[in-house]
Amino acid sequence: MAKFIVGVIGQGEDASQGDQKLAEELGERIAKEQWVLLTGGREAGIMQAANKGAKSVHHSLTVGILPNVTTKRSEYVDIPILTDMNEARNNVNVLSSNVIVACGHVGLGTASEIALALKAGKTVLMLGGTENAHSFFSQLSPQTVIRVDSVEQTINFIKTHVVGG
Amino acid sequence: MAKFIVGVIGQGEDASQGDQKLAEELGERIAKEQWVLLTGGREAGIMQAANKGAKSVHHSLTVGILPNVTTKRSEYVDIPILTDMNEARNNVNVLSSNVIVACGHVGLGTASEIALALKAGKTVLMLGGTENAHSFFSQLSPQTVIRVDSVEQTINFIKTHVVGG
Amino acid sequence: MAKFIVGVIGQGEDASQGDQKLAEELGERIAKEQWVLLTGGREAGIMQAANKGAKSVHHSLTVGILPNVTTKRSEYVDIPILTDMNEARNNVNVLSSNVIVACGHVGLGTASEIALALKAGKTVLMLGGTENAHSFFSQLSPQTVIRVDSVEQTINFIKTHVVGG
Amino acid sequence: MAKFIVGVIGQGEDASQGDQKLAEELGERIAKEQWVLLTGGREAGIMQAANKGAKSVHHSLTVGILPNVTTKRSEYVDIPILTDMNEARNNVNVLSSNVIVACGHVGLGTASEIALALKAGKTVLMLGGTENAHSFFSQLSPQTVIRVDSVEQTINFIKTHVVGG
Repeated sequence: MAKFIVGVIGQGEDASQGDQKLAEELGERIAKEQWVLLTGGREAGIMQAANKGAKSVHHSLTVGILPNVTTKRSEYVDIPILTDMNEARNNVNVLSSNVIVACGHVGLGTASEIALALKAGKTVLMLGGTENAHSFFSQLSPQTVIRVDSVEQTINFIKTHVVGG
Repeated sequence: MAKFIVGVIGQGEDASQGDQKLAEELGERIAKEQWVLLTGGREAGIMQAANKGAKSVHHSLTVGILPNVTTKRSEYVDIPILTDMNEARNNVNVLSSNVIVACGHVGLGTASEIALALKAGKTVLMLGGTENAHSFFSQLSPQTVIRVDSVEQTINFIKTHVVGG
Repeated sequence: MAKFIVGVIGQGEDASQGDQKLAEELGERIAKEQWVLLTGGREAGIMQAANKGAKSVHHSLTVGILPNVTTKRSEYVDIPILTDMNEARNNVNVLSSNVIVACGHVGLGTASEIALALKAGKTVLMLGGTENAHSFFSQLSPQTVIRVDSVEQTINFIKTHVVGG
Repeated sequence: MAKFIVGVIGQGEDASQGDQKLAEELGERIAKEQWVLLTGGREAGIMQAANKGAKSVHHSLTVGILPNVTTKRSEYVDIPILTDMNEARNNVNVLSSNVIVACGHVGLGTASEIALALKAGKTVLMLGGTENAHSFFSQLSPQTVIRVDSVEQTINFIKTHVVGG
């Protein structure tokens, strides 16, 4: 039976130190729940931090949906999926995840993924993002955009409303 | 030499009558400039209206980037491109257009395309969209999100700043 | 109403002079029939030659489905579609064409496109290809692989069996 | 560090009983080596059989690259990747695998994947396929098409020439 997959999305090279710290904690907690972590797989920002956090946990599993064959990939990705279709892979990320967590500041790439995730009927948790992004997306899809304030709250919401939902 | 292509994006089945009227006028004006109209190609909403407007002009040319092989396509599309990759085609739409016009209310699909277009460095004109969407995207990419209030202004901006830019 | 689109596929940089000459003649004849020419759009081999042939005809129309945003594109392509998905675009090429002509020697890229075209139920004309390729594909799909010996025969077959079929 | 991934490709609904038996044995042996099995993920033919074989082994891991969101997926897939891009996913399958095994009769879908795999520089082992397919592809890419006669020989080749190569 398919494992439970949590997609974590967020900025790459532009991610702040604070957002990366949050992502690392998030990745670790996802792995401790024995959920699979899915990211864009690159060795940068939120992706790198979340994968690093996950791999600090024994028996964790990380999947990276990589944009192209030359992308520098995170050393913490167990299963690199090489799409070679650049931004079009964003739709693969969100469709393959049971739930999405947008971690930290929402840039353009993340915004496209949130939009696609909501369009596909997925729940998107926004952790530590800007008020502006939350306001925009929750107006478009009030039921499925959830603001969370901590990793703890993120994990609890997923446990209660998605896994057990 | 490649023709100049204007991508028009917007809602499908949910588009309002007013937004469709705007799209039809926009399609007509694009065609009169002898620019190619590119849309998502479906027989619905902004896509259908823009294509209808364009085909009211002699020697116009319309390209539709269709989500899949069974999609009901607009009869006003001259060149149907069948991607069979559903939402992942959004990136093809924006990359293939020299400039993007988001026409009317911005839904989730349109939001994903605006984000991808801006990420790819394209200029996005927002015609008649909500204040909320304009505010969100112009904060992410202040230089390349342009609010326009009429079809006239849209065409003039493209002529002056994109074709002649 | 959608225009009639003929997809021409074949080798890029490795194409022989003879095969390129054939492609140029084929492109010209397709354009004279007022059909749209669709290729992979690159400035190389069969793609470049077929587009050049087509653009020698007044009012011709050429569409190029390009692998990525940095690809050197043929100057003879009117409508460049930028997929940014590299080899995955092969499926777009074949789905968007009403009929496929494989021109000249069949390399690996062309072989993948022939297979996808036949899988999608398209007719594939093999013009001047190797006996080996024809034998392999016609065994997999006897009804829809057609060996043709000249551009003349190619055009006549399309006229009689595809357009008029 | 990324796990070693073996891609197994072959027919779906049309697969013979013999080929499915071979695929089940192959999946089991791949899992016993602690390699990840990657397939097209559907509940049919070679995909279903190989995944079933793999999941008979403790701690095995199976990845399925699914064509679209409504595809009936194999219950033996641990990590379903939902591409929603139908045949265009074939390129993802081959790029994401360290080596490819074409198991049993080569149909059109498998032929497209073999061509893409060889184009991407991957080694393709042909196990129990038709002479015709082997002859065609080995002429196009003599160094990287390997005929194998048994699952034993397949595993040994991968161990010696790919993992240890």
